[in-house]
Amino acid sequence: MTKTLGILGGMGPMATVDFIAKLIRLTPARRDQEHIPLLVHAVPQIPDRSACLLQSGESPLDALLKGINVLVSGGADGIAIPCNTAHYWHPELVRQCPVPIFHMADICADYLQQEQVCNVGLMATDGTLKAGFYPPRLAARGIETQLPTAALQQQIMQGIYAVKSGHTETGSLLLEEAFQQMLDSGAQRVILGCTEIPLALSQTRADLQHRGVDATNLLAAHAVDWSLTSPANQAA
Amino acid sequence: MTKTLGILGGMGPMATVDFIAKLIRLTPARRDQEHIPLLVHAVPQIPDRSACLLQSGESPLDALLKGINVLVSGGADGIAIPCNTAHYWHPELVRQCPVPIFHMADICADYLQQEQVCNVGLMATDGTLKAGFYPPRLAARGIETQLPTAALQQQIMQGIYAVKSGHTETGSLLLEEAFQQMLDSGAQRVILGCTEIPLALSQTRADLQHRGVDATNLLAAHAVDWSLTSPANQAA
Repeated sequence: MTKTLGILGGMGPMATVDFIAKLIRLTPARRDQEHIPLLVHAVPQIPDRSACLLQSGESPLDALLKGINVLVSGGADGIAIPCNTAHYWHPELVRQCPVPIFHMADICADYLQQEQVCNVGLMATDGTLKAGFYPPRLAARGIETQLPTAALQQQIMQGIYAVKSGHTETGSLLLEEAFQQMLDSGAQRVILGCTEIPLALSQTRADLQHRGVDATNLLAAHAVDWSLTSPANQAA
Repeated sequence: MTKTLGILGGMGPMATVDFIAKLIRLTPARRDQEHIPLLVHAVPQIPDRSACLLQSGESPLDALLKGINVLVSGGADGIAIPCNTAHYWHPELVRQCPVPIFHMADICADYLQQEQVCNVGLMATDGTLKAGFYPPRLAARGIETQLPTAALQQQIMQGIYAVKSGHTETGSLLLEEAFQQMLDSGAQRVILGCTEIPLALSQTRADLQHRGVDATNLLAAHAVDWSLTSPANQAA
């Protein structure tokens, strides 16, 4: 029995599109009816996640909970959130949600453990770095997290907000250079830990593609597998 | 007040993604929060529309109504259906839906009238041709519809189902050739009247791009305009 995936999206809007496209490409389907059923809440008016974590801006929690309520009422059996930063609120969302909510960082860390990676760079928003949910999950699997220098992190944030404002080419240049610097500093692989980053790097050099760990794609693969294979009502 | 757009999608899944991407590109936004709020029901298990219309297959009406119910309950103020063939059921859906549902063929016909087109080719599914909702809407605006020959229509259907099964390159070749034949037969412009067709022709020759009328893009432009500019609760 194929289960319905709820997507709490809109953070940002094009990252949600990228996530859905990845779900579809990863589904072994030959006709419409073999694809997994989706319900998508993409209300981008959700307060900015990084602004809340760093500048005590308005909390997105109420808006996130409202979205989850719409998804569950509409029939979602499990929920994916294609926004890394929003996972800061994952524990609170899980407490208030009757269906499983996947955690991008857990899925990413499981993958890196399987791949026997010891040392990984993390490209993410200031909010995700401050929230700090990646390093302990990686450490628990024996993987060291390499964070960008302050100057490099500033460049990464500029790249991410360039993508959000529709300036994908500018974003690509900034993010590709930052990616290369993290590899030069010794990272074996680099987590693309903000859903805007894979959008900007989708056409990047093959050697970088190979070293990047696309957290959006891993979440999509996990969700497809969950929808198609695990029995109804099983935990994520 | 930005209104929430409900999308009754999944027909097919990638066509829904294409529609959402077009909505985002057409929105004059510089940050996440300026994009229009979306609720998307993409449950591709909806019975095949053409199979119902041509071979008395299972009707998709109940599944379509169920989707609309989820969208309205979740807060949609208006609904777009990025599937031309499904518009056969538009009158019945409108009767049972408390919010406006846009009609792709009306939007397309309005656009062609504005562009002072007199004669337009129609590339669509067998189901849409049988349903016959394009020609009278075009005729009401003084536009003649040019339909493909039976052999060409068979090629168009092969192209559409190739796209649905993930064979986009094969689909592109079949559909591009059919498009050219319709122009050779004297059509001024050609309606891409199945949401799979713009997917297949997104990389086509510039001269064809210029002559195609992308019904998906027109629906997206209409929906963005409706969400951002018309007063709440106004009819679509």
